This record gives sequence, structure tokens and C-alpha cells, in this order.
Amino acid sequence: MPIKSRIRTIPHHPHQGIMFRDITTLLKDPIGLRTTIQEISKRYQAHQINKVVGIESRGFIIGAPVAYELEIGFVPIRKQNKLPAQTISRDYQLEYGSDRIEIHTDAIQPGDCVLLIDDLIATGGTAEAAVRLIQDMGGTVHECCFVIDLPDVGGRKRLEKMGCKVFSLCEFEGD
Amino acid sequence: MPIKSRIRTIPHHPHQGIMFRDITTLLKDPIGLRTTIQEISKRYQAHQINKVVGIESRGFIIGAPVAYELEIGFVPIRKQNKLPAQTISRDYQLEYGSDRIEIHTDAIQPGDCVLLIDDLIATGGTAEAAVRLIQDMGGTVHECCFVIDLPDVGGRKRLEKMGCKVFSLCEFEGD
Repeated sequence: MPIKSRIRTIPHHPHQGIMFRDITTLLKDPIGLRTTIQEISKRYQAHQINKVVGIESRGFIIGAPVAYELEIGFVPIRKQNKLPAQTISRDYQLEYGSDRIEIHTDAIQPGDCVLLIDDLIATGGTAEAAVRLIQDMGGTVHECCFVIDLPDVGGRKRLEKMGCKVFSLCEFEGD
Repeated sequence: MPIKSRIRTIPHHPHQGIMFRDITTLLKDPIGLRTTIQEISKRYQAHQINKVVGIESRGFIIGAPVAYELEIGFVPIRKQNKLPAQTISRDYQLEYGSDRIEIHTDAIQPGDCVLLIDDLIATGGTAEAAVRLIQDMGGTVHECCFVIDLPDVGGRKRLEKMGCKVFSLCEFEGD
């Protein structure tokens, strides 16, 4: 398990009872970073994906090298008021309150086939909003790809109910 | 100029009189992303760099693929309270007020030879604080690398006064 074994768990971060899965220990290791990017890239090499969309900000660290390896473009989805040109936005629910993500209106063209990448899927709220942003612009999400899935939190099922395929490199159960 | 010509300028963003240099148009273009990462990577291939440090969050989009291409590890420097494990921090001045960046204390070992990457250097305040964080932990900064330098704003000179080498892929004068 060159990937899962390099992920550090920080108990009770940021709240009591949360087991935080920290990928910085995976990323700082040359083999960890290389294996992560290659495992993801080889899964999508034979497909007609033409853009990687990464979710701010750990999704940038995984998504940009995958786009580079696949020789396609990279598009960031960011928190509100971070992107400088014209955007469309989607709100999503948090445990307390809501948050908003945005994408540039010229980032996706109708017909684009997109690989959506983030480091981790928990409830899937951000990922669902991201999928809808891509669909709002006429793009198709080929698959949602994560380094880590927390299956007990339900995000994968939520995305699958929307008709999305979901892939993760590893799972942590009991979270 | 496959790189500079793909960077979009957004006048008066985020404030009146600021010419915002937007790399999202470079990144979404397969040739733009590929050329950017390869131009940077080939400059450092023959050197004994063993880590890339990228500054949140556009520095992640450039730094992570460069680390991947160079087959070394990637370390994020983040805004305060974003990193989950033990950190050290540095404050730096903004036009109004100050800000703080952090790095994990186990991210850099004494003797590490680091390539520091961000998308753009303006005043150099963030980059100076990042260099000091790396040095605080006993690391050496081989060079500070940016996609864009705004030479009239003075960041390059500021880093050079600290004894740092600075490299950029392109410059925008008159900013």
C-alpha cells in the first residue's frame, strides 16, 4: 500500500471526534507523489478526457500533475471571489451554514469531457456542487476521482445517485 | 511566446489601477500547461534539489507538476490554520495589515535543497516569508521560481538582497 500507508491520521482535527487524513506526508515523499499521480493517470489514459478540473486547494496538488501527465488542460474551481474573470457559482451546505464555489465561464466548453479531482470525498457536498458547475456549462463529468474515500460518510453514494462514476485510490472506514 | 501570450490580463482587478495577470488561460491550454512545467523542470534537472515547496494556492498548480516531473517530493506552504499537524509560521506585510503563512515542522529536514515556486512575484513579501520558513528549518533555497515577474514592483530585487536567486518564465513591465 504505497499510498494509504503514507497518509497520516491526525486524531481530533479540526474537531473532537474527527480523524483528519493528511496527505502532506504522501506528497512530500517522491515515491508517494509519483505513485499517486501515475495510478490516477493510467486509469484515464485511454479515455477521451480533455480537461482536469481540480477543487481548491488540495485538489490542485493532485489535479494539476494528472492534467500534465495526461497532456490536457487544468481548470481550477475556487472558493468565492478568488477567480478574476467572469464566473458562475454554486452554493453547498456545510455542517453549519453554507459555502460557495466558482468556475470561470470560459473554462469549460459544451462537449468537454472532464475528470473531476479532489484529495478526499467525505459528504460529497463540494463535489456535487462542482459536478453541477461543469454540467451547467455543457460539460460531461467522465468520473470523479479522489485519493481518499470515507465510505461511511456517504459522499460516493451521493455522487452515484446523481449518475456520476466515482473512483478513489484508497478508503478509510469507520470515519 | 507560448507562455506569456496565453496569460490573460484583467484590468482593474481586484482594485482600480491593478492589471491582474491571470494564469488560468495558460493552465487550461494543454500546450500552455505542458510548456510551463517543462520549461521550469528542465532548468533544475541537473541540480541536487530534493523538494519543491509551493505557496498556496496557485503555487500548488505549478509546483506539484514540477515536483512530479523532477521525481521529488512536494511541500505546501499555506495560509494560517490550514495545515493539520505541527507548524511554524511567519508574518508578512500587506498593503493594509499583515498575513501569516505556515509550513509543517516535519516538511523540511536540515540539508534539504529546495526549489520555491509560486505563480507570480510582485512585492515579494510572501516569497520572503516562505524563504525564511525554509531556512528556519535548516533547508537551503536553491532558487525562487515564478511564472510571472513584475519587475517594477521590486520583489525580485528584494529576494536577491536576501541572497536568493530568482527565475521567472516571463515579465510584465509597467505594472
